[in-house]
Amino acid sequence: MMVVVMQQEASLHEVSAVLRMVEAEGLTPRISNSSGRTSIGVINATPELRPELFAALPGVEEVTGLKRPFKLASREFCPQDTLVHVRHVVIGAERVCLMAGPCSVETEEQTQAAAEAVLADGAQILRGGAYKPRSSPYSFQGLAVKGLEILARVRERTGLPVVTEVIAPELVPLVADYADMLQIGARNMQNFALLEAAGQCNKPVLLKRGLMASIEELLMSAEYLLANGNSQVVLCERGIRTFETYTRNTLDINAVPLLKQLTHLPVIVDPSHATGKRDLVAATSRAAIAAGADGLIVEVHHDPDHAWSDGAQSLAPQQFQAMIPGLRRIADAVDRSL
Amino acid sequence: MMVVVMQQEASLHEVSAVLRMVEAEGLTPRISNSSGRTSIGVINATPELRPELFAALPGVEEVTGLKRPFKLASREFCPQDTLVHVRHVVIGAERVCLMAGPCSVETEEQTQAAAEAVLADGAQILRGGAYKPRSSPYSFQGLAVKGLEILARVRERTGLPVVTEVIAPELVPLVADYADMLQIGARNMQNFALLEAAGQCNKPVLLKRGLMASIEELLMSAEYLLANGNSQVVLCERGIRTFETYTRNTLDINAVPLLKQLTHLPVIVDPSHATGKRDLVAATSRAAIAAGADGLIVEVHHDPDHAWSDGAQSLAPQQFQAMIPGLRRIADAVDRSL
Amino acid sequence: MMVVVMQQEASLHEVSAVLRMVEAEGLTPRISNSSGRTSIGVINATPELRPELFAALPGVEEVTGLKRPFKLASREFCPQDTLVHVRHVVIGAERVCLMAGPCSVETEEQTQAAAEAVLADGAQILRGGAYKPRSSPYSFQGLAVKGLEILARVRERTGLPVVTEVIAPELVPLVADYADMLQIGARNMQNFALLEAAGQCNKPVLLKRGLMASIEELLMSAEYLLANGNSQVVLCERGIRTFETYTRNTLDINAVPLLKQLTHLPVIVDPSHATGKRDLVAATSRAAIAAGADGLIVEVHHDPDHAWSDGAQSLAPQQFQAMIPGLRRIADAVDRSL
Amino acid sequence: MMVVVMQQEASLHEVSAVLRMVEAEGLTPRISNSSGRTSIGVINATPELRPELFAALPGVEEVTGLKRPFKLASREFCPQDTLVHVRHVVIGAERVCLMAGPCSVETEEQTQAAAEAVLADGAQILRGGAYKPRSSPYSFQGLAVKGLEILARVRERTGLPVVTEVIAPELVPLVADYADMLQIGARNMQNFALLEAAGQCNKPVLLKRGLMASIEELLMSAEYLLANGNSQVVLCERGIRTFETYTRNTLDINAVPLLKQLTHLPVIVDPSHATGKRDLVAATSRAAIAAGADGLIVEVHHDPDHAWSDGAQSLAPQQFQAMIPGLRRIADAVDRSL
Repeated sequence: MMVVVMQQEASLHEVSAVLRMVEAEGLTPRISNSSGRTSIGVINATPELRPELFAALPGVEEVTGLKRPFKLASREFCPQDTLVHVRHVVIGAERVCLMAGPCSVETEEQTQAAAEAVLADGAQILRGGAYKPRSSPYSFQGLAVKGLEILARVRERTGLPVVTEVIAPELVPLVADYADMLQIGARNMQNFALLEAAGQCNKPVLLKRGLMASIEELLMSAEYLLANGNSQVVLCERGIRTFETYTRNTLDINAVPLLKQLTHLPVIVDPSHATGKRDLVAATSRAAIAAGADGLIVEVHHDPDHAWSDGAQSLAPQQFQAMIPGLRRIADAVDRSL
Repeated sequence: MMVVVMQQEASLHEVSAVLRMVEAEGLTPRISNSSGRTSIGVINATPELRPELFAALPGVEEVTGLKRPFKLASREFCPQDTLVHVRHVVIGAERVCLMAGPCSVETEEQTQAAAEAVLADGAQILRGGAYKPRSSPYSFQGLAVKGLEILARVRERTGLPVVTEVIAPELVPLVADYADMLQIGARNMQNFALLEAAGQCNKPVLLKRGLMASIEELLMSAEYLLANGNSQVVLCERGIRTFETYTRNTLDINAVPLLKQLTHLPVIVDPSHATGKRDLVAATSRAAIAAGADGLIVEVHHDPDHAWSDGAQSLAPQQFQAMIPGLRRIADAVDRSL
Repeated sequence: MMVVVMQQEASLHEVSAVLRMVEAEGLTPRISNSSGRTSIGVINATPELRPELFAALPGVEEVTGLKRPFKLASREFCPQDTLVHVRHVVIGAERVCLMAGPCSVETEEQTQAAAEAVLADGAQILRGGAYKPRSSPYSFQGLAVKGLEILARVRERTGLPVVTEVIAPELVPLVADYADMLQIGARNMQNFALLEAAGQCNKPVLLKRGLMASIEELLMSAEYLLANGNSQVVLCERGIRTFETYTRNTLDINAVPLLKQLTHLPVIVDPSHATGKRDLVAATSRAAIAAGADGLIVEVHHDPDHAWSDGAQSLAPQQFQAMIPGLRRIADAVDRSL
Repeated sequence: MMVVVMQQEASLHEVSAVLRMVEAEGLTPRISNSSGRTSIGVINATPELRPELFAALPGVEEVTGLKRPFKLASREFCPQDTLVHVRHVVIGAERVCLMAGPCSVETEEQTQAAAEAVLADGAQILRGGAYKPRSSPYSFQGLAVKGLEILARVRERTGLPVVTEVIAPELVPLVADYADMLQIGARNMQNFALLEAAGQCNKPVLLKRGLMASIEELLMSAEYLLANGNSQVVLCERGIRTFETYTRNTLDINAVPLLKQLTHLPVIVDPSHATGKRDLVAATSRAAIAAGADGLIVEVHHDPDHAWSDGAQSLAPQQFQAMIPGLRRIADAVDRSL
């Protein structure tokens, strides 16, 4: 990707001239405004496209390349933090965003109960799966549309925006109709058809890191979303697969500060999947905030021992409540709120 | 899953009575015929369903459960090897099946050249990607329908059946129209919507192991295909992700004999992806056959250094040709042909 | 292992009677005092040894087994936190213990400079390698005895106790002569001859987790130290090897709260090795303390770009200094000090 | 490392002149003779040592460097295969070397029984552990000297040379007194003090790859042995640790042809540890020979179900016998014998 960096004082007219030039070459420009300076990314610039073409235009400061394979997602291209808006909730700003709720939407009562509990404890977004990707074809696969409807009604009653998973490209319009934020799950992180569909939709996306995916691959998948026009993307570290068997996954805490360096997108942590053990959620949640995470997504169920999925890693409401003051103290300690 | 095992000499009438009883319970029976004995699998049997219901029927030998989470895919359920038919080619029988061809379909000439070369050296199936899942949105993504058309024309001219990848559920009917066998790639091994669509189509499926998927997860994904009605499934070990950096992936050779024990489905190996290095393809192909693989899928390109993807692991036709006699000798040594 | 749990009010006389009985069976008793209650572990109890033998003695409450393969190291055997004393420094109590210093002892000036810098910023223990296990026989292997002498002189001048690595059983007495705490490095975590030698020496031991070792294996290696008589053991999570290549290792933050549950031994974190990148040390150090670590061991060098080893992950003194206030705030937030 | 390559027709006198020049610089020369050409390696050559110094000498063809971090172990330095001699047995030549025997030496009868069985089936070397590195301090640790004595007596009676593990530097002279080949186990692959001691002893060494060691690290550990003067080194791939749980380890079959490219040292495979399952030993042994391994080391026990260690992966004599004809056919197919 070639990046045309405009001078601080470049006029709108000068920026437009660059955009027209890019389009005249049959290419699509991508605009970033960071700290009052405009950059124009030119993707798929062929080797024949000479930088001099742009360098000579008025208002242009310099024309550069980007070293990393991710471009629009890179901190280099957009130095300023991206804020992601899920209804009235802002992710990536001073307040650490707490998303919580059941693994699966099971019944309206269960979802309502979880929503009320987590709302009371400061959660800003309700999570809950209507479509569940399950290893076994014989496991509960989610309530589908009925689950989406439940989520929508619970949102109406509680005011909590809803994030829920979408598992196939053709379901994107449907899920986007009900949800406030689309989740792309770990197993679908490299489902490129799904990424393209979600990239073309106008809802923010929560992109979870695959359990087998490198940090670079996660950013490349974000790049799919951005290159398809959706810049409202939140990344989620949810544990990677290693040789360790005492925990379900290994929370890659290094990824949090590293991602914050490499990209301008918000980064959250899922301590429930990253540990697989209820007992470890509070401590790893504190660690995530201390390391710089912009949010958490936590599984909470009113009766974990009877949850239809992920019971072992779900918190009961009182356990969720009990960990909040500790998280708040850590948030304070890194000059944030919760 | 509950399995109703019929006596060797059970009549068709007796088998039918069991099937009717299963359906009367609102469940779907799955039939397996192995060594002249019929078994009927009853999936999603609730705890309330009592084995005695079936045990008392005439012709029933015993009613058992299965220990592993994969049922229809298990050797326990179907002791006899499944043969998969791709046009006139049989996979899983005495002859080791050689699939070969370019990573991507680039042009008609390139595909034709590769097909002719591999045909001359004993390949039975042509591989080639029309839809390419790529980590980067800026990489070549395949020729799509145009690629499928090229593959179909090359098949007409060479007689080689074609296996090609499908990357989204809504593409299944289109790809099935052109291809003789659908490939589900490593990154989509747990794309359950895709597995369901492919399970409901009437073409054989080549299911590749995810690069960080366990053997059990691979078999569970096969179970999705089988439970959706498609029993023509070939499994492919294509290397897993480890800490080793000298090779692109680590070929899990243990998986070959282990899968042959655990399942009745044919098992092939992809030495190109499993090593990522052209130099290692011949030796690991020999190892795969020696370990009991039913086939190989190898990347061959007429000009690897200019391949649009995977050049480093593609063989030139003369390299492919050079390794064949060695493979044949190994096949002989395990009482198979090539 | 069989554990004889005494009644709260058991007399010294009653405890002695149990000890004599154990010895009469030709076995070695291990005593733990936790919350005012004495337990006596009987290791290598053969199946023939009947619990009734002890259960009948006066003052005995119950005779139990332990489920985990680690016994003396388990929280079950010793519910109370072990405090490890390195001269005047206590590890495992309220104050988070900061160990810092250069990777290798290079010169007296360099070591003294690092020691003064880290002392000024609140470090309690000086780290520095005199014996360096290096992948290459051609790399700098440490100053050996000369390095130990430097460490001893720097300790005299600064008052900082010294932790340094020992790499062979026969070096244990020598290193123990100079050092206040012996480090067993990641590559030697399963060097059982070394563990036995260190277990028989009277200096506290810092046991680092192997980059390939499971949490259970780490605890089993600690068990070697304890079973050989040394109960002054600190465990160190220093990152494990995974497929991720952007970082040198993956800090397994889950291990911190999990180890605190499983064992009574103090747990510290090495953010330098766990990340391999200077830039990530501050954030992961905060995470470690937030997750419950009892200490940190950090590489600090007065001139990292010219360090003889591990320069990329070493902090300059001013970088070390800059992160301390942030760590202190996190320590406060978990009711500890630094 | 600087390498001085002599002309094909260089005289002994000319070679000596180069050696004297190296020593005059205070450095140690390493000589390699491959295909009738002599090369002289100069290790630890400081940047000040100018190639011109040697290039000007008579008989010198060129002075080069080596790219890889391993030098003496590299194929580049020594193009010709190294043959390792264990008494009358040659490893690395046309005949695939079969090493077999029990995991642990338990009793004289058990060892003798295993030795006789494997000898009858074509094994050339007897394996058996007298010192056992065990994760638990409470597990059987081997018979130590008593085990070495048993091995020596069994050798006398059967004529089979003996390979056995050494686990500490100070034990090297003792074990070397009894054994014909020293084994350095996976957990000690980076026990550098042990490598140095074994490098200075005059017995051939079997170096096993660590369960999470990269191929480069294995070669660097071999380099320790070579740099300390012992060039009789055999490398052993014995499975690496991955996320897969159906097998104890993952046999990295890629490593076999890759090591044969990178180094001149013989490479063998341990199918017993690499799978952890008796059922998989025959198939993976065939794969190893097909991939180019120079030998196998297999655990055989006269009564695996009562073995004191590693029973699940040990073959009974009749199972060992049953797999031999299959191995022989594979060996034939790659122009080798067994």
